Amino acid sequence: MSKFWSQFVKDLDPYIPGEQPQGEIRLKLNTNENPYLPAPKVIEEIQNHGSDRINLYPDPESNILRSTIATYHDVDISNVFVGNGSDEILAFIFYGFFKNKKNLLFPDITYSFYPVYAKLFEIRYQQIPLNNDFEIDLSLYHHENSAVIFPNPNAPTGIPIPGKKIEDFLQDNQTSIIVVDEAYVDFGTDSSVSLVKKYKNLVVTRSMSKSRSLAGLRVGYAIGDTTLIDGLIRIKNSFNSYPLDRIAQKASVTSFQEDNYFNETCKKIIETRNRFIKALENLQFSVLPSGGNFIFAQPPSPLSANTIYSQLRDIGILVRYFSQPEKLKNFLRITIGTDQQMDLFVGELKKIINQ
Amino acid sequence: MSKFWSQFVKDLDPYIPGEQPQGEIRLKLNTNENPYLPAPKVIEEIQNHGSDRINLYPDPESNILRSTIATYHDVDISNVFVGNGSDEILAFIFYGFFKNKKNLLFPDITYSFYPVYAKLFEIRYQQIPLNNDFEIDLSLYHHENSAVIFPNPNAPTGIPIPGKKIEDFLQDNQTSIIVVDEAYVDFGTDSSVSLVKKYKNLVVTRSMSKSRSLAGLRVGYAIGDTTLIDGLIRIKNSFNSYPLDRIAQKASVTSFQEDNYFNETCKKIIETRNRFIKALENLQFSVLPSGGNFIFAQPPSPLSANTIYSQLRDIGILVRYFSQPEKLKNFLRITIGTDQQMDLFVGELKKIINQ
Repeated sequence: MSKFWSQFVKDLDPYIPGEQPQGEIRLKLNTNENPYLPAPKVIEEIQNHGSDRINLYPDPESNILRSTIATYHDVDISNVFVGNGSDEILAFIFYGFFKNKKNLLFPDITYSFYPVYAKLFEIRYQQIPLNNDFEIDLSLYHHENSAVIFPNPNAPTGIPIPGKKIEDFLQDNQTSIIVVDEAYVDFGTDSSVSLVKKYKNLVVTRSMSKSRSLAGLRVGYAIGDTTLIDGLIRIKNSFNSYPLDRIAQKASVTSFQEDNYFNETCKKIIETRNRFIKALENLQFSVLPSGGNFIFAQPPSPLSANTIYSQLRDIGILVRYFSQPEKLKNFLRITIGTDQQMDLFVGELKKIINQ
Repeated sequence: MSKFWSQFVKDLDPYIPGEQPQGEIRLKLNTNENPYLPAPKVIEEIQNHGSDRINLYPDPESNILRSTIATYHDVDISNVFVGNGSDEILAFIFYGFFKNKKNLLFPDITYSFYPVYAKLFEIRYQQIPLNNDFEIDLSLYHHENSAVIFPNPNAPTGIPIPGKKIEDFLQDNQTSIIVVDEAYVDFGTDSSVSLVKKYKNLVVTRSMSKSRSLAGLRVGYAIGDTTLIDGLIRIKNSFNSYPLDRIAQKASVTSFQEDNYFNETCKKIIETRNRFIKALENLQFSVLPSGGNFIFAQPPSPLSANTIYSQLRDIGILVRYFSQPEKLKNFLRITIGTDQQMDLFVGELKKIINQ
């Protein structure tokens, strides 16, 4: 605490990311990273061209990357914004689009960075409860003059919302800005990107950290109507002209060119996830339906999620445990690794359960 | 313009960075980049290790980099903050430390991003005129309950403030927060980093883009009292947990380990600058004293800076021209390249003058 801080700084309640251990860990299944490296050509691009002209500024507009993303999603470059991870983009969205709204609505159980951004920018918000099946019920988000953000699939539950439901919701809500955070969409969830052309109030955010195996590079993007993307560009150019470095831009372009590799990797993770869910269900765990590269699971009574989390940690296996809110405290969030990693996990979990 | 923008977005007047041309340019002397590549070991680090574990998140705290910087500057890791370029750090400083101040003071001729940040975060500010020699006169910055930011050396003038004058100013101003932006300090300007231990209200910001030849990687840092750095960390963790990617962290660490190379590069640029100033003076240009890797020069009457800028541009030579404010419109800002580049520049300039 310092007298030089602006008033709100002392009231901040910063986001706590999953542990990034420096030491040796047997299994890291706590921050939803991809167990597979990016496509070999992405690695080659970094090795062979990463240091090219590194003494010069990157393109501040990231035009090659933005046009690559535009082509990939069949939109115009003016519909694409890129940022230093989707977290930076979400921060700009909160500040640029939510700041003066009467009310911002998001689920009570969701990406825990949303209330943090709201606090940072002093934005009023209301958290809408999930239903009893831990699902987002979009019928509860109809409010005039508000703004709405939700992830699809939701985090940390992993539950996807069908595309049809989102389109119905958009049809009934064309006066509020709607942001769909698709960080995990590539693992079997319906995307809303194609709806951007029809609904001028829709922004979809994406991450290169999960399905594209580039968490180490910090790249995210957003797709939306030109006027909304223009607003984000204005904010970016008033905050940091060059948020994406040369290597991040180049490697991301290559990632989009390696579509077969990308699709195969996503498919493998989905298959491993389904196999892993069966293994957990055989151990009497309840597992929520997942459209992401992680699952959210409740151990059978009287086992405690917190105890299992600690016992796994003791043997070098990291998963994510949320002690708050109350509704989550008997769940574990487990990232999907390779088949081999999940087999190791299940083997160790059995030992803990059978102690 | 969109009805979904927050009110202030339409009033933004974003920073315009120097052109980053995509095509072939003979000489790029417009954005103060370093003409030398970083040390060979920095390049090797990117080539050999850049793609290591790129599928995993970087250390959100950048601890190895921060402790490397701390050792380099003889401070504690708790005195060091790192960000996605010093621009991001300046944005956090404006929001976190200047937002609720009665008055923010900075020079009327200075880094043109300062008024942009102020507008973005709706911060009141007052611009203090340079004196008739284009110098910052610190005696005009004594105000209670305000905040002060200035670059040393100043931009785009390049004029350095002697360390003694800054310490005298700090001695008389211990209740206001003072930020010294040392983006260009390594080219012969006195640094205020060693004053951080004595003055708890001082923050010094640095860039890896200029003297360290890493503009393409986006890394900056700040040194200040622990309580001030804590404030920046709280904001960063409420904005983007992972602003620095794996490669940026690793390559920056290596840069600090290659101190001889770094010192030699800075020395070469200073020598080239002094040689270039003499050549311009031989052509009757007035050149302001420079402590940076650029000079600010006025062509002899009746030559027009704007015309020379355009004629250079026509032959593929980029320098920076500011049509506003009025005081600057007969100056050119020219980045210092290699001796060979500056010789080429002087040769082409002579042709233009003698037309």
